[in-house]
Amino acid sequence: MGELHVRSLLVTGANRGIGLELVRQFLGMPSPPAWVFAACRDPKGQRVQELQNLASKHPNLVIIPLVTDPASIKAAAARVGEHLGGSGLNLLINNAGIAKASSLDNETLENMTQIYTTNTVGPLLLGQAFLPLLKKAAQGSPGSALNCSKAAIINMSSSAGSIEEVFLWNYGQVVSYRCSKAALNMLTKCQSLGYREHGILCAALHPGWVQTNMGGSGSQKPPVRVDESVRGMLKVLSSLSEKETGTFLDWEGKVVPW
Amino acid sequence: MGELHVRSLLVTGANRGIGLELVRQFLGMPSPPAWVFAACRDPKGQRVQELQNLASKHPNLVIIPLVTDPASIKAAAARVGEHLGGSGLNLLINNAGIAKASSLDNETLENMTQIYTTNTVGPLLLGQAFLPLLKKAAQGSPGSALNCSKAAIINMSSSAGSIEEVFLWNYGQVVSYRCSKAALNMLTKCQSLGYREHGILCAALHPGWVQTNMGGSGSQKPPVRVDESVRGMLKVLSSLSEKETGTFLDWEGKVVPW
Ligand SMILES: NC(=O)c1ccc[n+]([C@@H]2O[C@H](COP(=O)([O-])OP(=O)(O)OC[C@H]3O[C@@H](n4cnc5c(N)ncnc54)[C@H](OP(=O)(O)O)[C@@H]3O)[C@@H](O)[C@H]2O)c1
Ligand SMILES: NC(=O)c1ccc[n+]([C@@H]2O[C@H](COP(=O)([O-])OP(=O)(O)OC[C@H]3O[C@@H](n4cnc5c(N)ncnc54)[C@H](OP(=O)(O)O)[C@@H]3O)[C@@H](O)[C@H]2O)c1
Repeated sequence: MGELHVRSLLVTGANRGIGLELVRQFLGMPSPPAWVFAACRDPKGQRVQELQNLASKHPNLVIIPLVTDPASIKAAAARVGEHLGGSGLNLLINNAGIAKASSLDNETLENMTQIYTTNTVGPLLLGQAFLPLLKKAAQGSPGSALNCSKAAIINMSSSAGSIEEVFLWNYGQVVSYRCSKAALNMLTKCQSLGYREHGILCAALHPGWVQTNMGGSGSQKPPVRVDESVRGMLKVLSSLSEKETGTFLDWEGKVVPW
Repeated sequence: MGELHVRSLLVTGANRGIGLELVRQFLGMPSPPAWVFAACRDPKGQRVQELQNLASKHPNLVIIPLVTDPASIKAAAARVGEHLGGSGLNLLINNAGIAKASSLDNETLENMTQIYTTNTVGPLLLGQAFLPLLKKAAQGSPGSALNCSKAAIINMSSSAGSIEEVFLWNYGQVVSYRCSKAALNMLTKCQSLGYREHGILCAALHPGWVQTNMGGSGSQKPPVRVDESVRGMLKVLSSLSEKETGTFLDWEGKVVPW
């Protein structure tokens, strides 16, 4: 297992929950990245306070405005490219995601579309927009083996999107969310096949059932703390190689069935 | 393996390709259904000629207008309910589907959304709208075991939507299509879990790579004829029981991995 030496990365949905903790732990590494781009919907809003505090202490942290819209995504990629000067982006973590309480009976066209747009189409468009920077990072890294320190797209999926497991069905049917994550897993597989030739590793992660707004919105307290989940996922990221591209792993490194 | 004795069924996308052949073979059975509802977008259009010809010969065939829109879907269910009088609908085949040539690089938000709406959201909404009629059919059938003669939802999926197989990737990336079918497989699993208590079997089918407009739009001729594919699928339908609800099978009855 290697170590993570990521020169630059971007995390979406970085203002709270798992995204914020990813930013925090990357910044706290013994040799932290030269650039941590923290993307969020509303960089001036109340919910970005913690990110602002971090940014005041870490000059390598840059807050990037980003909504799920083709123009916004392109603008974010351009902005990141300017900061990076001539160098590439090593790691894109598509973490932003939404779930809405819903059941088979009350699921609607609007809900299905909105959640698919954020959870599935967003990561597709982000992959397209950041592809030139990811390619550049891959070309600038020694060796041909795939790994996360070189160039990678990590999609934050969920065991709730495992068709085999249908994790926590009795806790919440959330059909729109499950369908969007199954589709995100397919996207991850497609990205791994399409981007392999560019030297980019692509994988889907399940962070565990985690104590965030999303994880803890029901009646039960999730078993996994955010810091534990992220520590586990960083260990997993550091271990990924050629043979894990196109796979779906949980925060402890176990394979999740499709 | 049982025999198929379906009193009433509805097939979407019934004006051509696999949908039309399903209608044809159901009508040609030794004891044909009392009602075959053939749903299509434009019941008066040029592309419905063959269905019109069949209807003029088969009084048990009813053409139903249907587009992927909540109001249209509800209206179709109401219309089918009127024809059925007090009885239920045994079999809903969500066959309508679209694919557009696309690659990872040129896939768009519009394409992703449009294809998801038709291929994934449509079957969800159809399941909801026809649930009362499917329940009625299940209640009106003897025995508690699930099967297609009693009450079933069959979603026409594709091995292209198998995350494990990514069938024909080198032939066409069609990311929007693959994501929509992976999501449809998840929907099928959710429907099987949610509708089991109502006595409704739910399964996803891969029809093979079939000689239709969709299958044959590329440079290679697909290996499977439409009549072969449909004959195979009808045999599979006749064999489905309790233990196949929530599964994904191909036209020859083989399990397709998720
Ligand atoms: N927590 C769990 O148990 C769990 C389990 C499995 C998978 N996951 C996945 O892990 C990821 C992070 O979840 P979390 O638990 O940290 O959730 P969270 O605390 O609810 O945070 C979600 C993040 O996504 C952002 N976001 C939501 N919708 C967005 C949109 N339309 N455009 C841009 N950003 C949007 C939010 O931004 P705002 O603050 O602006 O809303 C927020 O930063 C998600 O993809 C989720 O599906 C979580
Ligand atoms: N052919 C294959 O090799 C293959 C392989 C795997 C899976 N499948 C699946 O099998 C199913 C049938 O495909 P096929 O090969 O018969 O395709 P096809 O010949 O292209 O026929 C598609 C049917 O779907 C209807 N349709 C398309 N978009 C629609 C929409 N937005 N609203 C309502 N109806 C719509 C079409 O109606 P119009 O005539 O009005 O356009 C037509 O009746 C599809 O779900 C497809 O994904 C096919």
